[in-house]
Order: sequence, then C-alpha cells, then structure tokens
Amino acid sequence: MTERTDKTRATRRRFLAGAAGVAAAGVTAARADNAKSLAKNLPPNVADWSKSLGEGVGVRAYGTPSKFEKDVQRRTVGWLTATPESSVSFTPLHQLDGIITPNGLCFERHHGGIAEVDPNDYRLMLHGMVDKPLVFTLEDLKRLPRVNRVYFLECAANSGMEWRGAQLNGAQYTHGMVHCVQYTGVPLKLLLEQAGVKPNAKWLMVEGGDAAGMNRSLPLAKALDDCLIAYRMNGEMLRPEQGYPVRLVVPGWEGNLWIKWLRRIKVGDQPWYTREETSKYTDLLEDGKARQFTFVMDAKSVITSPSPQMPVHGKGFMVISGLAWSGRGKVSRVDVSLDGGRNWRTAKIDGPVFDKSCVRFYYEHEWTGEQLLLQSRAMDDSGYVQPSKDALRKIRGVNSIYHNNGIQTWAVKSDGEVENVEVG
Amino acid sequence: MTERTDKTRATRRRFLAGAAGVAAAGVTAARADNAKSLAKNLPPNVADWSKSLGEGVGVRAYGTPSKFEKDVQRRTVGWLTATPESSVSFTPLHQLDGIITPNGLCFERHHGGIAEVDPNDYRLMLHGMVDKPLVFTLEDLKRLPRVNRVYFLECAANSGMEWRGAQLNGAQYTHGMVHCVQYTGVPLKLLLEQAGVKPNAKWLMVEGGDAAGMNRSLPLAKALDDCLIAYRMNGEMLRPEQGYPVRLVVPGWEGNLWIKWLRRIKVGDQPWYTREETSKYTDLLEDGKARQFTFVMDAKSVITSPSPQMPVHGKGFMVISGLAWSGRGKVSRVDVSLDGGRNWRTAKIDGPVFDKSCVRFYYEHEWTGEQLLLQSRAMDDSGYVQPSKDALRKIRGVNSIYHNNGIQTWAVKSDGEVENVEVG
Repeated sequence: MTERTDKTRATRRRFLAGAAGVAAAGVTAARADNAKSLAKNLPPNVADWSKSLGEGVGVRAYGTPSKFEKDVQRRTVGWLTATPESSVSFTPLHQLDGIITPNGLCFERHHGGIAEVDPNDYRLMLHGMVDKPLVFTLEDLKRLPRVNRVYFLECAANSGMEWRGAQLNGAQYTHGMVHCVQYTGVPLKLLLEQAGVKPNAKWLMVEGGDAAGMNRSLPLAKALDDCLIAYRMNGEMLRPEQGYPVRLVVPGWEGNLWIKWLRRIKVGDQPWYTREETSKYTDLLEDGKARQFTFVMDAKSVITSPSPQMPVHGKGFMVISGLAWSGRGKVSRVDVSLDGGRNWRTAKIDGPVFDKSCVRFYYEHEWTGEQLLLQSRAMDDSGYVQPSKDALRKIRGVNSIYHNNGIQTWAVKSDGEVENVEVG
Repeated sequence: MTERTDKTRATRRRFLAGAAGVAAAGVTAARADNAKSLAKNLPPNVADWSKSLGEGVGVRAYGTPSKFEKDVQRRTVGWLTATPESSVSFTPLHQLDGIITPNGLCFERHHGGIAEVDPNDYRLMLHGMVDKPLVFTLEDLKRLPRVNRVYFLECAANSGMEWRGAQLNGAQYTHGMVHCVQYTGVPLKLLLEQAGVKPNAKWLMVEGGDAAGMNRSLPLAKALDDCLIAYRMNGEMLRPEQGYPVRLVVPGWEGNLWIKWLRRIKVGDQPWYTREETSKYTDLLEDGKARQFTFVMDAKSVITSPSPQMPVHGKGFMVISGLAWSGRGKVSRVDVSLDGGRNWRTAKIDGPVFDKSCVRFYYEHEWTGEQLLLQSRAMDDSGYVQPSKDALRKIRGVNSIYHNNGIQTWAVKSDGEVENVEVG
C-alpha cells in the first residue's frame, strides 16, 4: 500500500467519524432548541411550513432568492469608488460554490453610469480598414452562427488594494472583481470576415455606448482567435450592468477590454492609445515608468471558505474551498498550504475544467482549533505558477493597482475567526 | 475533396453572402428610421443612453434583467393546474440559448404550495434500516465534502398534453418542464455510509417538508450511484420553489423523485407505494394496466427556435437551434429534418456535453420562404434513438400523460409563423 493510499483511507476515517459527530451535535442542538419558541419547527414536531402553502412565493414570472438569503449580495466599498458615475461592486465569492456565478451576483464596474440601451435602436458599426463597412442590428447578430463558452472575467484592478499590504478583510473585497458565466455570442472573426479586413490591419478600436464612451485598442490577432460578440450570459440576455444588449468577450484578458454596450469596432494598423490604456490600466513600475498593454490575466486563486466573511463555526471536519483561474489556458493544479506556504498539498479540482474559466477546488481538513495560515496557489497548462506577493513586488514594485495575482493568506484563529494577513 | 467538405464550404459561402445582406438591411432600416422620433438614437446621432448615467440601474445588491426583457418569463397554463395548492410554470426555452438555465427562469411544479423553510430550523433525518439514525442541520451538510454537477431536470409530465395530438402552441408549453443548472451537493452515498445501511436494505423513502408531504420510493442502488443532497444551484443557494434549502438530485430520473424541501430519508427493503407513485406518476397503458416505476427520462430533444413563440422574421440565413438531453448518459448526436422526417442531417452540438445534461445543437439554413416541417431527434451513448410520437403510441397507447419523448414537429409557414403540428 502506498503512503498516498494510506493517507486517503485515514482522511476518510476521520471524515466519517468527524461528520457523524457533527450530525450527533445537530441532534443535541435540536433538543436544546426545544425549550425555545422556535422549537415548534424542530423534529419531532411538524414544522409551520409543512402546514401552509407559503406566503408570497406563488408562481412567479421571474424568480428571486429566498428571503433568508438577503445577506448574499454584491457589495461596494464606499471609499473606493461608489458614485453613480463610476463605481464597482464585488461578487460575494465567499457565499458561492461551484464555478457558475449567478447573473444577479456578477460584480460590475462602470465608468460613466449604466447605459440603458433600447434593443430596437441598438446598432453595432464595423468600419475602418475594411472592404465593406457594416452596421448590425441586434436581430442581425442573433441570426448569425454563435457559440457557448464558459469564461472568467476579472477586472485588472482585482486585488489592487493589496499591493502595499493586507488591507481588505474579505474574499469578496480582495478578489470579488471576478465572475464566471456561460456566454453565447458570435465569433468576432465572422463579422471581420464579412467586412473584409485590409491586409495591413493590425489593431481594432472597440467602443462602448455608455456615457464614458469607454474605448480600448485590441490586437487583431486576439479578435480573430477567440473574441465573441456576446449577447447572452447563462442562457438569458446580458444584464444591463454587463452591457445589455451586447458586450465584447475577450477570453483570459483584463476585464476593461470586455467593452460593454458595444457600439463600434474600428479596424486600424496601430493602437489608439486611448485614455483607458494610458492614464489608466497601465502598470506603474518602481522607477516611475508605466508598463503598457498587460492584457493577460495570469493564473490566480483564492480560498473563499474559510475567509474573513466566512469564519469556521466549531472544530471538526471541514472543507477548505476556493476558486482558481488562468488567462493563459486551463488550470492544471491547485495547491493548498495550512502553514503560510511552508508545506503544500495538492487540492482536488471538482467539476468541469474549461479553457480560461474558473475551477473549483477543495481540500479536506480535520480542524482541532489550531491556528492556520491558509494559502492557495494555481498552476496552468502553460507551466505558470502563481507567485507570492513578495515575488511580484520585487519585479513590479508597489505603485500599480493592476494585475496583482499574488498568493493570498488568511489567518484562521483558534476561535474560528479569519483575517487577511501577510506572511514574511 | 469529400462531399462533406464541399457542402461545408458552400454553406460558408451562403452564410457570408446571407449575413452581409442582413447587415446591409440593417443599414437601410436605420436610414428609414431616421424619419421617426426614435431616429435620435440611431447612427450617426449620439444615442440618449450615451448622454446620461441611466435611471434606476445603479449598483444593485442583487441584479435583475433589463426592463426591455420583461417578456422573458416563466408562464403558466390556466386550464392545466394553476392554483396556489398545485401548479406548474414553464421555462421559456424559446428565449434562451446555451445549456445553463438562469435560476429565475427554471420551471417549477409544486403539489402543496411552496414551503418557506427557515434554514436555522431545517433538519434532515436519516433513519430506518440503518445502524445509527442521524439528524443533520444545514450547517452540518455544508461542512461535508460536496461535488458540482450540471444535470437536466425534467418533469415526467413534460409534453404530456401531446399524447393525443399536437395541442400546445409553443416550445415553452410542450417542452418547458425541463431546466439545466449546476448543482452543488453532498453525495447521498456519504450520508448513507455514515448511518450504516443494513445488509438487506433495498429502497429509500424520500420525503419533502412541503404541505403535500411529497414522498417517493427510490432504489438504494441509485442513491449509492449518483444522487446528491443538493443545496445550491448555479453557485447560490437553491431558490424557494426549487426546494430551499435542500433538495434531492436524482440524475436522469423523473423530476417527481427530486424531492424538494427534503426532510426525511427512510431506509427499507421494499417500495412504499406512496400516492405519488400509484395514483399519479404511473403510465396508464392501452389495456387499462398501469406501468409502475418508469424512472428514467429517455433521450429527447426539441427545436426551440424557430418555434411557435419564436417565428422567423424574413428570409435569409438563419440558425435552427434546440436542446437535447438523455437520462441514460450523454447525448451523442442530434439530427434535424426540414421535411417532417423524410431526410435527416446531423446538427452541430456546441458547448459542453455532460452526462445526463442538456446539450445545445445548431443547424444552419438559408431560408427562401419555403414551408418547413422541422423535427429533431436525439441519440445517446447507450445507442438509444428518440422515437416518433406514433412509434411511442403503438406501444404505450394514449392514456398516459407521462414520459412522452416523441419527436416534435414545427411547421414553418411562408410568412415565418410557426405552428405545432403532427406528420403522418
């Protein structure tokens, strides 16, 4: 018998013992609760909800979460940017599992409000260095061949507040500018083929219809590779804050390029050097120079539970869970450390592993109340390994707010509370 | 060059010509619209939504669809069963794409209202022929190992009104009692292992906490194979009408077994013959005998667009699109017919193909206004081929309302309107 098998069996035994203990505790709790008023809903009594048809939850045209889940929500950080003009909300990663983010909880960042585009008046113009300029209505786009792909979308500024040290206390705030949904859209390549791109074209300018007129330069090669003109997320039409009715999907690249309310694509032979790729979304280095066009979001991961907003309630068997993603391909492995990076164990990746998508990882642990320094590190099929924050700082300094994919540390204290910390 | 390659290239040429025509029509429409008041939002004008920050769509804790998508909703059929006690709503399949159903649009069927379970008072009892009866709280379940799986869920009565002939005019009504989401849950096998199942146990009784006390008998072998004690769908907690906080997931088997608001699992050595598996959910045959325990949902498919609620707007290139699924494994192939089943072509399956999950299929067609009799037929990796309605009727008669997986026919008329018909 190998050591590995030995360990697996031992873990299994611990789990069965631990979980049975948990269940027994449940019974005890139920008995203790019998003294309280809510005991009427606990076994052996028949609960109130088994005696009525429920209130206000009859057949609904469009369903909403349970009233008991009101705490599961996108949140903002007031002092960061929370104004009607420019804001950002964060995905509650700590309250989710699996890899699909429900549409209502996908983080969103806007720079000039949320455009309310009438789909009947929507037009997408494709012009510049092409044989034949084209204008598409939404109905035109919907008649074209489309594909369905699950991709993560991460804002370049995700974890940006952590460059100078542990700051925000919660996975939602440190890593919540990421979400992962199934998009339906037309390959941008098809539209470019229809228009006929001139031989010396090399770049596109992609522009949004919001009040910010958000625009960026995109290499033609990427557009021809895997970009989508997307109009659906998780089956239904895009949400307003995600660019309804049409957004650009740029798999694996920084979210700022995924232009929402997409109204124009201009073909050219060089970058446009727009505001959003000069004064913003460049990486200011130690020497004062700014690195431009850091498109790819490198491999990254975060433990979502336990985390500061999701403490551990009591000792015993538990599952350490998190998300990993890479803009360079598929996540190939995720390691977890319990001691701040001194020892690493391979976590189990569960569920589908798609290209440039989130994966869900789990690591089982019998917690005896000892202090933990939890970390995770992602690897992808390009051979890239997620670096420590310090390794990143050595190369990049601490002036930037973008592209921080350093390893996150959560300290689990003996009372189960969790804090954002850094280890030396 | 093979015939297949020839055909692919020809299709490609037709698509590029057709789609460019569509785009040109868009430009024309835009110009014509300039005479109207809404012309102010069309190019070359700057649209209203580019000049403001939007109304009522600032950062929201939990997002909702665009106000322009109000028509995308679950619908009921009044004369069927639409009462507070017992009702069914239908997924708007014709308005969706890809394979993931957004949680707010998943069809739901209830038999005794929608239980409003307080998650703090939730208990799951596991007893009967076990070594150690157990009671789990929701927190207990959340601490256990879990898996993430995408599965379709189909009501046994889906398409049930079509046994005696084409009746309901819309894919939402004929096939909308199906949805497909990513579940997160604990393998039921783990709970059974903890309790210790007695050697001669063969069946489980699974019971819901709703006012109907919905209960069914489930073979132990299935429970040990792939059933889940699920508490999440598409990442977030289950919706109230889907069994919040816990439902049973029985992959590939009829929806009635997927007990919602799950409160009790009893282990025994024979079926319980509950109301819902005797007076209901049996297949009444021609000779008056009822076939019992038709658990598996056989391979099935439906074209969602075009369909009666999604007519064709004008001639030209279009994509015929639909969903296919099988309770016996993976969908291996979907064929499409344009002439009521005389000739079949293989459709393209796009996106992931999971076990016992929906797949999305597409078939491209240049429509010249000719009448079409659209059909689709699904095949799975067990070798099963979806039968015609008549083939089903020869064996099953027309007395049942359950397990109708016959091939659906849509007639596309020269004006683009679509109707539910049957072909001889």
